[in-house]
Amino acid sequence: MRLRNKPWAKDRLESYPQYVVAKPESYKGNWTEVFGNDQPIHIEIGTGKGRFITEMAKANPHINYIGIEVYKSVIVIALDRLIEEDLPNLRLMNVNAVELQNYFAKGDVDQVYLNFSDPWPKTRHEKRRLTYKTFLSIYENILVDNGEIHFKTDNQGLFEFSLRSFSEYGMLLKYVSLDLHNSSYEGNIMTEYEEKFSSKGFRIYRCEVQFQKK
Amino acid sequence: MRLRNKPWAKDRLESYPQYVVAKPESYKGNWTEVFGNDQPIHIEIGTGKGRFITEMAKANPHINYIGIEVYKSVIVIALDRLIEEDLPNLRLMNVNAVELQNYFAKGDVDQVYLNFSDPWPKTRHEKRRLTYKTFLSIYENILVDNGEIHFKTDNQGLFEFSLRSFSEYGMLLKYVSLDLHNSSYEGNIMTEYEEKFSSKGFRIYRCEVQFQKK
Repeated sequence: MRLRNKPWAKDRLESYPQYVVAKPESYKGNWTEVFGNDQPIHIEIGTGKGRFITEMAKANPHINYIGIEVYKSVIVIALDRLIEEDLPNLRLMNVNAVELQNYFAKGDVDQVYLNFSDPWPKTRHEKRRLTYKTFLSIYENILVDNGEIHFKTDNQGLFEFSLRSFSEYGMLLKYVSLDLHNSSYEGNIMTEYEEKFSSKGFRIYRCEVQFQKK
Repeated sequence: MRLRNKPWAKDRLESYPQYVVAKPESYKGNWTEVFGNDQPIHIEIGTGKGRFITEMAKANPHINYIGIEVYKSVIVIALDRLIEEDLPNLRLMNVNAVELQNYFAKGDVDQVYLNFSDPWPKTRHEKRRLTYKTFLSIYENILVDNGEIHFKTDNQGLFEFSLRSFSEYGMLLKYVSLDLHNSSYEGNIMTEYEEKFSSKGFRIYRCEVQFQKK
């Protein structure tokens, strides 16, 4: 996505601590304090403009959601949406995925969503892909045992790479669709990007993979 | 494929014991006797009219190939091809895949090819799919340790099922292409079926999976 610099974004994010978690490191192992309950926590890494996570939070009030996005100029749009919806079970976090172990202890998170992550198509950039083994290790270290990643993308190369990466990591493939929008899968919530690209006829790939107890 | 009954097929297969292995159970653990050398053995299960296995045998004289096909009316066409080519490193076998452990001992086979296997699309027939767990167990019991299956199909549902089945069996996904004919993969040898269906614009899916030592 093309990013426009928004110098005011930092101030705006800091003005809404009830929606954008400030000092997330202080809740490591103690996220019940943030939500005021012990519902399971699902996180989306690369939440973008926030449509997916907001719709998920509305549809599943018994689950707590955290949308994580590194770009301030993008997450402010998710914040606008959250201000309007005012959902008690949704928070945003403006942090980088490589730092997640600073904010979540093992077992804090019940499920990870990756939607239309940057494909980083050049081989020399493969370590930046959010399904590269070093990221899988980070997710494993914050998820419950047998936690799952739910992943979708329109990028064929990223999906092929990710299937291999999940397998090499020893994860179990529980669900796979090679054409989500023409499948029997129900209840799909589209991201902004997904709606745009699937309407142009691009296939959407989706899988659910599970970490295995070691 | 539509099968035409060919009552003469049985006699014809039996007339060429130098190409069609008679009494394969007598070579279990001792296939060097058939080929007269100890080159690795690759088998194709469901070899059809035999184009793939014949081209592979011509391209790789240092490997021994066995084309396995249960339908007599189909394998006689592969036999015609083999009579014409007269390749020392290729044999045919007219047996059912469920019986393979009667003919091969553990380690007799170095690699298994599955090309455009019958998708058996109905869920109540999934046990008949050649990538169902009971078949994977048969292949594991005749392959060398860390042996591989190389699988391609144009059937999306069968490919999705197979990726899950391989994963559930604990196999490692070493290679996957979700659009083989538009990929960087080199040296693909097409089956008769593949040429026909890819020319109509259907995608070809391909993967290589490896059994893991237990």
